[in-house]
Amino acid sequence: MMIDKPSILVVNDDGIDSHGIQVLIQAMRDLGHVYVVAPNGNRSASSHSMTLYEEIYVQNTNGRNEFRCSGTPVDCVKLALNKLLPQKPDLCVSGINHGSNHSINGLYSGTLHAAMEGTIQGISSISFSHLSYNVNLDLTPFNSIIKSISQYVLKYNLPKNITLNINFPDVIYSKIKGIKLCQQGKGKWQEKFELKKVIDDKYHYLISGEFNSDKHNPETDSWALSNNFISIVPVNLDMTTSSHYQKLKSLENVF
Amino acid sequence: MMIDKPSILVVNDDGIDSHGIQVLIQAMRDLGHVYVVAPNGNRSASSHSMTLYEEIYVQNTNGRNEFRCSGTPVDCVKLALNKLLPQKPDLCVSGINHGSNHSINGLYSGTLHAAMEGTIQGISSISFSHLSYNVNLDLTPFNSIIKSISQYVLKYNLPKNITLNINFPDVIYSKIKGIKLCQQGKGKWQEKFELKKVIDDKYHYLISGEFNSDKHNPETDSWALSNNFISIVPVNLDMTTSSHYQKLKSLENVF
Repeated sequence: MMIDKPSILVVNDDGIDSHGIQVLIQAMRDLGHVYVVAPNGNRSASSHSMTLYEEIYVQNTNGRNEFRCSGTPVDCVKLALNKLLPQKPDLCVSGINHGSNHSINGLYSGTLHAAMEGTIQGISSISFSHLSYNVNLDLTPFNSIIKSISQYVLKYNLPKNITLNINFPDVIYSKIKGIKLCQQGKGKWQEKFELKKVIDDKYHYLISGEFNSDKHNPETDSWALSNNFISIVPVNLDMTTSSHYQKLKSLENVF
Repeated sequence: MMIDKPSILVVNDDGIDSHGIQVLIQAMRDLGHVYVVAPNGNRSASSHSMTLYEEIYVQNTNGRNEFRCSGTPVDCVKLALNKLLPQKPDLCVSGINHGSNHSINGLYSGTLHAAMEGTIQGISSISFSHLSYNVNLDLTPFNSIIKSISQYVLKYNLPKNITLNINFPDVIYSKIKGIKLCQQGKGKWQEKFELKKVIDDKYHYLISGEFNSDKHNPETDSWALSNNFISIVPVNLDMTTSSHYQKLKSLENVF
């Protein structure tokens, strides 16, 4: 009996030429038909942004199902679904991002939000990130666990409206202790604004920063990662909170 | 006795010259010291994106505390807090956005995410949007309710990590029935990709789309707005969902 191989969309925010997405593509080729639609350059911190009012372009350069796009990671997913893929894929994977997307970083991450756009489109979607910002770090040892997680998701599917935000700790693979299902941790960026030049009253700054996360709560991804676990945070498309309901309900009386 | 007036940061994503932010600025001038740091053009659908690796500039053009910035709405808030304001403001308001930010739209919205960045920075923050995309619609009748809500928030503060996502229904002010505290509704964009040109194998598209929301659930903002209520959705910075815990917990066994 012929079993149809699943079709898989691969996307990222570091750009199609990054090492991280190449490792992810290789892993996915062992599991199914792979389609790659990814930015033509670095789109870190794109969050869920998309390009309106301006044209974006997409280009197939190597004759395979790999497309370079001038837009955001979310544009890539929408373009893939609407214009490039023959049918809705069975899985959408994003990454492997070079750098942390745990804790509050998920809010800024183009990698996670590309996967969340997959979820919006009704596809089981996973975001993979590695805590190291070193783009030369060999991520191939993570190939095997990525395949295992992806196979599990292909078999059982994810619940509707839930995206998996997966981060790998910054240690060699053999030191990893396991996987932990976590809550999003707390943390804060201390931004640095470097004044580069002043031209015609325009003050030009370059933004950078340092991230400090609270690693004390063992329920969080921050704790898991600092204790050499792979963290999985199930992320909801619904941003509503039900906490402080009575206090907030009194806002209705302002009218 | 001298009572210090509160200081208020005003931001948006439609750009500093839009009618919506001008109405918001006028409203806030009646409540406190106003600082405006907003994009120098339209940044709709910026979500929580920020500008890394490239310089952004900021410019004070009118000698008042009003700054035009070449970055994203989130850049504006970070710049305001780190470089432009004399102290942390008591309130951050974003908008009034020309167009809907209810339901799933909040995920894409630069208006809401600018306010969420305010929340990250520890400031009570509110996002205001009007369902009409008509930039010529007079929003001044909403001045009074915006002031009442803002005064309430200045008096009682918002709980930590919660941002208010407020949308106004697309009817004249006198038809509004009240305010409803809501859950984020469900809806879906049907995207349209218009092929504009093909140059050197680059297919250039312009993205637009049509939004369809499910208005049946009376707990949601979609229902409230279609029934002429102002909707308030309390939005959480923590994206973790606790639903389907057992099913997702079994992912730990994949390792």
